[in-house]
Amino acid sequence: MSNLFLRTLRDDPADAEVPSHKLLVRAGYVRRAAPGVYSWLPLGLRVLKAVERVVRDEMSNIGAQEILLPALLPRDPYEETGRWTEYGDALFRLKDRKGADMLLGPTHEELFAQLVKGEYSSYKDLPVILYQIQTKYRDEERPRAGILRGREFVMKDSYSFDLDDDGLTTSYHAHREAYQKIFARLGVRYVIVAATSGAMGGSASEEFLAESEVGEDTFVRCLESGYAANVEAVITPAAQPIPFDGLPPAKVYRTPDTPTIDTLVAWANATLEGTFTAADTLKNVMVKVRAPGGDWELLGVGVPGDREVDVKRLEASLEPAEVELLTDADFAANPFLTKGYIGPKGLAANGVRFLVDPRIGDGSSWITGADEPNHHVVGLVAGRDFTPDGTVEAAEVRDGDPSPDGKGELVSAKGIEIGHIFQLGRKYTNAFEVDVLGENGKPVRLTMGSYGVGVSRLVAVLAEQWHDDKGLRWPRAVTPFDVHLVIANKDQAAIDGAQALAAELDAAGLEVLLDDRKASPGVKFKDAELLGMPTVVVVGRGYANGVVEVRDRFSGESVEVAVADAADAITATVRG
Amino acid sequence: MSNLFLRTLRDDPADAEVPSHKLLVRAGYVRRAAPGVYSWLPLGLRVLKAVERVVRDEMSNIGAQEILLPALLPRDPYEETGRWTEYGDALFRLKDRKGADMLLGPTHEELFAQLVKGEYSSYKDLPVILYQIQTKYRDEERPRAGILRGREFVMKDSYSFDLDDDGLTTSYHAHREAYQKIFARLGVRYVIVAATSGAMGGSASEEFLAESEVGEDTFVRCLESGYAANVEAVITPAAQPIPFDGLPPAKVYRTPDTPTIDTLVAWANATLEGTFTAADTLKNVMVKVRAPGGDWELLGVGVPGDREVDVKRLEASLEPAEVELLTDADFAANPFLTKGYIGPKGLAANGVRFLVDPRIGDGSSWITGADEPNHHVVGLVAGRDFTPDGTVEAAEVRDGDPSPDGKGELVSAKGIEIGHIFQLGRKYTNAFEVDVLGENGKPVRLTMGSYGVGVSRLVAVLAEQWHDDKGLRWPRAVTPFDVHLVIANKDQAAIDGAQALAAELDAAGLEVLLDDRKASPGVKFKDAELLGMPTVVVVGRGYANGVVEVRDRFSGESVEVAVADAADAITATVRG
Repeated sequence: MSNLFLRTLRDDPADAEVPSHKLLVRAGYVRRAAPGVYSWLPLGLRVLKAVERVVRDEMSNIGAQEILLPALLPRDPYEETGRWTEYGDALFRLKDRKGADMLLGPTHEELFAQLVKGEYSSYKDLPVILYQIQTKYRDEERPRAGILRGREFVMKDSYSFDLDDDGLTTSYHAHREAYQKIFARLGVRYVIVAATSGAMGGSASEEFLAESEVGEDTFVRCLESGYAANVEAVITPAAQPIPFDGLPPAKVYRTPDTPTIDTLVAWANATLEGTFTAADTLKNVMVKVRAPGGDWELLGVGVPGDREVDVKRLEASLEPAEVELLTDADFAANPFLTKGYIGPKGLAANGVRFLVDPRIGDGSSWITGADEPNHHVVGLVAGRDFTPDGTVEAAEVRDGDPSPDGKGELVSAKGIEIGHIFQLGRKYTNAFEVDVLGENGKPVRLTMGSYGVGVSRLVAVLAEQWHDDKGLRWPRAVTPFDVHLVIANKDQAAIDGAQALAAELDAAGLEVLLDDRKASPGVKFKDAELLGMPTVVVVGRGYANGVVEVRDRFSGESVEVAVADAADAITATVRG
Repeated sequence: MSNLFLRTLRDDPADAEVPSHKLLVRAGYVRRAAPGVYSWLPLGLRVLKAVERVVRDEMSNIGAQEILLPALLPRDPYEETGRWTEYGDALFRLKDRKGADMLLGPTHEELFAQLVKGEYSSYKDLPVILYQIQTKYRDEERPRAGILRGREFVMKDSYSFDLDDDGLTTSYHAHREAYQKIFARLGVRYVIVAATSGAMGGSASEEFLAESEVGEDTFVRCLESGYAANVEAVITPAAQPIPFDGLPPAKVYRTPDTPTIDTLVAWANATLEGTFTAADTLKNVMVKVRAPGGDWELLGVGVPGDREVDVKRLEASLEPAEVELLTDADFAANPFLTKGYIGPKGLAANGVRFLVDPRIGDGSSWITGADEPNHHVVGLVAGRDFTPDGTVEAAEVRDGDPSPDGKGELVSAKGIEIGHIFQLGRKYTNAFEVDVLGENGKPVRLTMGSYGVGVSRLVAVLAEQWHDDKGLRWPRAVTPFDVHLVIANKDQAAIDGAQALAAELDAAGLEVLLDDRKASPGVKFKDAELLGMPTVVVVGRGYANGVVEVRDRFSGESVEVAVADAADAITATVRG
């Protein structure tokens, strides 16, 4: 440590909000070079490389082959798939000296599809899984939390190419299992959640979320069944149809001063017999949607009045169409839309598509807008008085909602995305016409999967999940050094003994960080806690009595070991 | 090989001119993604990683510590040192979503200087050597020769920080020796040449050039003494003064129709007694120079008439001043400059600085311009009739010129820059005020060195230096696989035997590329030659007689080895 390029800091950096960011900076693992752009100092780089090794190992175990594509990419392939524009401001774009448009790769589906097209021409070559561990770039709007969400970061991205859907499923599950092994080896606590595919395209997709209070991704899970999903991917159980028989006919009421659900419920309870809640009202939210290459069209979205529309869920449901809220101009152009009093009947009469939450089943009865100012209709029955054009996942998901698997209730939690696996299908192979000659002599369009692990982000995730109030604590698989050996005794014999012990451990194949600085034991102990090696060995006052102290950074427990046995005992501890 | 992501090509790629480019593409090591931007396929990546390992190992041996800085960098530090503009079009510049100027790092002096300033504050922390192996970006005007000169490439760059000049010298020599070890281990044929510092700034600098016909760098060397230098760094021995006594006085002649050196020499031989050559004339070339922050000033450069002015040498001599040739407007603004007839006297009379080639020593006598149209002066003696303001290295260097060490003649050769070491001094530490508290309690400005190895370029250099007409040939230190094992026998016993041999070699720690494809022996042998593993083992017809063939890809020789001894014999061959 007297030579190590390291300076620990007493104070948290001013721009740090989350524990991993504070600690990785204070412990000298990383330094900020620009917003969302970090330098890896010696200890940080060691953790990063350790994560890479585990990822590489498990990718190799499923037969994936490592290659390395450039980060500086031409525009054309991304233009071809539409992502040059779809990525919006998140894409770093630049021009070269000749004025050619280039970009810094955020992910490489296009390039891998082109590469496989160029190299392979026969079904005999398939399947193939290719991967890279590479620096990626995304111009995040709010880069935050240090390396947890950076603008330059290291990712493992892999791509599978198969002849058919079964092959894709096999490649997908191979990745799923490899990821489970990777995260288990690294010591990450995580959940796998059903996810939507988003701009990536494709069908099935799951996210690996590290459990963390500081996560930006909200997911829900059922503790009873283990079900977990991204909020966007939660499927609401469809309501069972209820018989109409005996339901009173719908009736329109004048309902002055009821522009909100709350005022409407208050009116209902005051005027009608019964105890109504917001869940008895039907809220009809207007948006406009545009399918790729199509025109903007009106869409009515009906949800129970006790729930807000979650725009991200709505967007995910309607993917790949775009969704926007209506402007005043839109309302002006469609005068039949009576703001605050929109009802299913008016939409149907004007040919507007109307999708409802799955809770709005046949036979359910609602208080809703009557399509004229200050009027609502009561007892409007789905399937009898109106027929929606289908269902849509648009209503917010709440703690206590039933789990889609019917086995309990959902609770929400925060997570950090550390992996994502996609069954892309043929979106990219269609774009580049990636065909091979099939066994029957006819061309076969390949089907593709895409799989990512946030390698640099995992360093922050591990710091986040394992730290305590004294500092970092590294799982053995990623610790920068196996042993932190502190010389806390000024006697030359003790110093020599510590050096000899370090040499013995080194000879046994352990990586030892020797604190040989001229500093007080107190300073050294504090730094050892901050830096977070799992095993701390102290050559201190006990050395005169022939013992050294071996501390476990996780449990906080320490044992005294005879100097003569120390190397063996420590090696055994490290090897577990 | 039946699973390897590899396709070998029969034909050279259309855009390839040099052998390494052709072969690395044909053998499926790399693929072009954009001009000067390449993807590394499995075999290529293995060579790249092998080069990295050797570099890392030797850097570690001199106590250098590995870190990793970002490639995406903020403008400010480069603005501070002037390199934001100095780099010109070679710098990839971009803006982020907030409009902030950023760049893709071509080299990281600024960032390392800032980093050390931020971390270190005491003389006790010094010296320190930091390095990274990282992707760099330069927007080359003519990216060429595949990965030999790419726009995205991998470099090892290191930076030393020392308290004083002696420390810098020590760090510099540590790097020099580490580089010698690296290139020796890799098997590169190279020379170390004296170099100029160029835009990097600083004093001493040497280049490591791989000898190669396809190199873009011309250097000269003295085969007798081993002296070698970049053309820009060649020092011309100063001429010994000659006594003036007995030299006739200078005399002006009317010399119509002598605008060129050739016509002037013809006139002299026709009109005067004696046999004159171009070397007897003094050619005065006008340029303008501008020191940093200064104004443009005229400069006369005198060279013997038989030599051209080498603008790159002149620029290197006058560094950091800029140099430009005169325009017609410049001549018009300085009417005393009589184009074609400029002489030292006119320059002196008009206060124009005049620098001469070191060959123009006191007492040497010249035919040169007389500062009026159609007139030259003969017998103008340096030190008697004119006194230059100094000497300058501006004349071209030619084969046969005397070596600066006086031990022979210079011959020129081509090379590829694979390493460059600089004693930067305090250019960057001054820019960022990188001080530490010295032993005496006063601040000490650190002195800095910068050292680069072209890691990805070395892959091409090794291909360039070692290939033959059949394909690549990899030195053991970098070969993608130790052994290429070809199954050239369809009998199941032979196939099983080959698999068993591969497993034995694998167990012995060797990396084996097994050609288990359904292809003819001829195709397999051709691919083995193209791919270039140093040892090729053939399980062929001899297998029935209990032998396999072991071929040396370099010598072309092959021996038969008994199957029972094969694993041991091959392992011994590989281990050398």
